[in-house]
Amino acid sequence: MNIDVFMSPNEMSAGDTQGRVVAVIDVLRASTCIAVALHNGAKSVIPAEDTDDVITKSKQFERSEVLLAGERRMLAIPGFDLGNSPLEFTSKAVNGCTVIISTTNGTRALLGIQGARDIVIASYVNLSAVLAMLRTAARSDTDIAIVCAGTEGHFSLEDAACAGRYVNAVTNPGSPVTMNDGAQACALIDRMYGDNIEKIFEDSFHGKALAEAGFRDDLVAAAAVDSHPVVPIYQERQITRLGPDRER
Amino acid sequence: MNIDVFMSPNEMSAGDTQGRVVAVIDVLRASTCIAVALHNGAKSVIPAEDTDDVITKSKQFERSEVLLAGERRMLAIPGFDLGNSPLEFTSKAVNGCTVIISTTNGTRALLGIQGARDIVIASYVNLSAVLAMLRTAARSDTDIAIVCAGTEGHFSLEDAACAGRYVNAVTNPGSPVTMNDGAQACALIDRMYGDNIEKIFEDSFHGKALAEAGFRDDLVAAAAVDSHPVVPIYQERQITRLGPDRER
Repeated sequence: MNIDVFMSPNEMSAGDTQGRVVAVIDVLRASTCIAVALHNGAKSVIPAEDTDDVITKSKQFERSEVLLAGERRMLAIPGFDLGNSPLEFTSKAVNGCTVIISTTNGTRALLGIQGARDIVIASYVNLSAVLAMLRTAARSDTDIAIVCAGTEGHFSLEDAACAGRYVNAVTNPGSPVTMNDGAQACALIDRMYGDNIEKIFEDSFHGKALAEAGFRDDLVAAAAVDSHPVVPIYQERQITRLGPDRER
Repeated sequence: MNIDVFMSPNEMSAGDTQGRVVAVIDVLRASTCIAVALHNGAKSVIPAEDTDDVITKSKQFERSEVLLAGERRMLAIPGFDLGNSPLEFTSKAVNGCTVIISTTNGTRALLGIQGARDIVIASYVNLSAVLAMLRTAARSDTDIAIVCAGTEGHFSLEDAACAGRYVNAVTNPGSPVTMNDGAQACALIDRMYGDNIEKIFEDSFHGKALAEAGFRDDLVAAAAVDSHPVVPIYQERQITRLGPDRER
């Protein structure tokens, strides 16, 4: 069984995700927001490339059924319902709605994936839930790819560390798993930080920028392992939760 | 002062290397071969994109003045003088000659660098020599970029670990250095492996492939820190050693 990590979507070649279970990670903050939204009752989350794309995509819905979400330079977009802070995606805000979210890095990562068997959105807040899916894949000898969204094509420490957490939790010492160099490096990074996830954010470029912009509480939320146990599946350009539909 | 590491040339944006001292790393094996060749008396090393490019570039020279070097799938190219094994770049073989070397990843990395103040070729075999240059830059508050050549756009463990060695050796605890996420991750990877460089090669995809192809001795040579103390400078499409010309 192979488990590969790609440090950014740029690093993937055609075929790298073919037939695989693929986890996409954009810890700060798209992956986290998506998990929170779906756990809190959003019907689906539709990733959009930019704010114009959010508006275009929203036109297929009744205005009351849809929430426009996204950020521009970390701040909420004027006229949108929600920013890109996980704290905003409360049950009260999202239950029963479709959320259309502008997330440059995350969307780019999703669109770059070709021929995957399944695509799942991973973060710390839904670690064990997504891990259950990846372990099931590993058990049936299905290869796994983990794609870090990164930041505008650059390596992101927090995505790599989170990818490493998944790698370490999927692989067992002595089990016949082949890791690419990215998976090995991420596994090391995760082991260096251990459970001190807030320290990763303190060290990372994006974490620092968010703290400086006043989003310190978002970092606490994004570091809350298993706080939102949901498996978000990307299929036909929307993300829905794996499992029976539920209405709150 | 900023020190940034780019995990592969894909990750660089225009401006990332502007005005900086830039170190390019392709430990297995181009950087190592280039340092060995220049230390052993090669007049210059000219990187070429592929074997055809080697032949084209060689036509500006007398045949006796030039050595054609390169690999295809790790093996020497028929009709070429040298492969891509550092053990071949002996004084006897290279002294006084210009070496034209086909190195896909390394050349791509070099061509991607724009507006740099200086470009230097770094590896383990010329660690302290290149470090002296980077420390001098740091002292004068010149920003540093380290570009890992990677493998066909993919992250390479050995390039990242070597980059981390440079990062750790340039920065002092408590000194006001700003690192990008790549530099921080590489610094961690270097610290995890410490002086066990051969273990990095054992773990890395490219190291394993070379060992399996019979190039185990190349890995020992590439891990020999400071065995070839030379500062290879890339300028006007050729690489020459920094310092007074010498004839052996």
